[in-house]
Amino acid sequence: MSEVRRDIVTDTWVIIDTENDRIPKLPVRDQMTPGDCPFCEGHEARTPNEIYAVRDNGAPNTPGWKLRVIPNISPILRIEGELQKYGVGVYDMVTGIGANEVIVETPNHVTNFFELTEGQISLVLKTYRQRIDDLHNDKRMRYILVFKNHGRLAGATTMIHTHSDLIALPATPVRVKQKLNGAQEYYSYKERCLFCDIIQQEIEMGDRLIFQSEHFVVIAPYASRFPFEILILPKKHAFTYKLIGKEEIMDLSTVMKKICKTMYDILDDPPYNLILCDSPNLLPRTNYWSTIKFDYHWHIEITPRMYRTTGFELGTGFYINRIAPEKAAGMFREKL
Amino acid sequence: MSEVRRDIVTDTWVIIDTENDRIPKLPVRDQMTPGDCPFCEGHEARTPNEIYAVRDNGAPNTPGWKLRVIPNISPILRIEGELQKYGVGVYDMVTGIGANEVIVETPNHVTNFFELTEGQISLVLKTYRQRIDDLHNDKRMRYILVFKNHGRLAGATTMIHTHSDLIALPATPVRVKQKLNGAQEYYSYKERCLFCDIIQQEIEMGDRLIFQSEHFVVIAPYASRFPFEILILPKKHAFTYKLIGKEEIMDLSTVMKKICKTMYDILDDPPYNLILCDSPNLLPRTNYWSTIKFDYHWHIEITPRMYRTTGFELGTGFYINRIAPEKAAGMFREKL
Repeated sequence: MSEVRRDIVTDTWVIIDTENDRIPKLPVRDQMTPGDCPFCEGHEARTPNEIYAVRDNGAPNTPGWKLRVIPNISPILRIEGELQKYGVGVYDMVTGIGANEVIVETPNHVTNFFELTEGQISLVLKTYRQRIDDLHNDKRMRYILVFKNHGRLAGATTMIHTHSDLIALPATPVRVKQKLNGAQEYYSYKERCLFCDIIQQEIEMGDRLIFQSEHFVVIAPYASRFPFEILILPKKHAFTYKLIGKEEIMDLSTVMKKICKTMYDILDDPPYNLILCDSPNLLPRTNYWSTIKFDYHWHIEITPRMYRTTGFELGTGFYINRIAPEKAAGMFREKL
Repeated sequence: MSEVRRDIVTDTWVIIDTENDRIPKLPVRDQMTPGDCPFCEGHEARTPNEIYAVRDNGAPNTPGWKLRVIPNISPILRIEGELQKYGVGVYDMVTGIGANEVIVETPNHVTNFFELTEGQISLVLKTYRQRIDDLHNDKRMRYILVFKNHGRLAGATTMIHTHSDLIALPATPVRVKQKLNGAQEYYSYKERCLFCDIIQQEIEMGDRLIFQSEHFVVIAPYASRFPFEILILPKKHAFTYKLIGKEEIMDLSTVMKKICKTMYDILDDPPYNLILCDSPNLLPRTNYWSTIKFDYHWHIEITPRMYRTTGFELGTGFYINRIAPEKAAGMFREKL
């Protein structure tokens, strides 16, 4: 079993695979073709058994599905076992309990998220909600991260068949804590949601506003870490993605298809990450997050990864961005 | 002038170049050869005027030098101007004041740090101290980061002539604050330096210990974020690199040459970052860091970058490391 170790100095957590012996090689591999691809319909036997699926017909792990959720074939965290905490001298450690799932978004070998139909994207967005809801019943799971890696520089593997990744973690990650603390602090002296205030300000100022739909606002964040970074926020205050309704899901799929297509066109198929920034699981420690329903506001980050990070970002947590978000937003508005 | 913007939610700072219009392209460029290389002796006219140099003979910006410090030709922060803070609605901003220097470590076209002689490495280490000392006199400079990028995946450019980078920042970065806070918290209940305790524990336990010299200890950190991460700590408590003495510099150059060579051999010339983790400039706000002399302990991080980070690291600040540091330390010990 892997170990989840805490860096005592920075409060950064690291999942350490204590069993592996291979030295990592810089991979130079071909991308999967439909013939090889274990995510394509008809190749169900090449993946672990499905956890969840949306099907027109067929038995589990046979063709006939529209969307499948399967365990990662080489999971870094496992659902089996007890969540235990140890001290190792001055250090802290938690056993490698968690989950590591893959959401295969279509039975066909589509390689770009925006090429899915709006109906397919809706299904993906509903599945996010279903998986988070389900995993939150397990109080060992402190935080569920749903994300996408597209392109080599964004950490994608050779599995180019469009999919999302999900990792359930036994500790609340430092970046999530930073966000929760920032929001809580703001709320504690303003008694208003920080994200609601950001939405209002960005709509009024307009220079970083990319797009508005009935239920969502899309902006280039003021302190964008990467050129052409995109932030999608629900207009109505909601602390967790689990509260998203049917109409909002339909609206969000239109927004995401449009934004991802425009990003593809402007930046010529850039590598990017997409991250669903949700609340932590409230089941294990309700009191600690007592104001979260008022002060946190779920959102989606899309970050093109056209630069490699250097020792500077690694050493500081500072970022250097050579394209102002106001310019990026202007370019998006022109093309939308 | 660029702007240094604070992400109000996460307290991450981003340097935004508000003047640039180019869309970043994924660069596919050739590495510099001695004929093209502006860092090679005889090509001084191709760089901005030197800030500092160690010379046997010759006038500034002519041949005859052993080591040169020059401004970055395309600096992200500039030394000229006033440090001003603005609010932009809910957001915070600081003018892009700072410094961005390059330390050219040898007049010859050497591409690996460990290929320098111990004498040359000593000169580099002395120059780090000199530059930090000098820049700390300017109280607009809150933090000086000295670092190295080697190899494409570690963010290196085509300038392969061995050099170090220095960036002086107008705000203390979040990762430095995390370290300072972690150390301060530990000191506040133990009245002992966290890093001194780590050194003692690692020497006693031995499984993550890579190497000891008279003045330094080299370990694979317990929560290594990357496979084969290396941490170098001075044995004698010292809160800032500025306190390093002549003997320690000589010892450290031997240690660094040996460690970098071994890393090169084991991992076959891996991309890596090297980061000098020093204290912030105490001049601007002494009271805030009142216990820093007792609780902080400077160190050097060397992080091979054989994996790309994904949406997971970006969204969480968590890391996944598939090689246990105990295994990495064992492999280093075998080869040293």
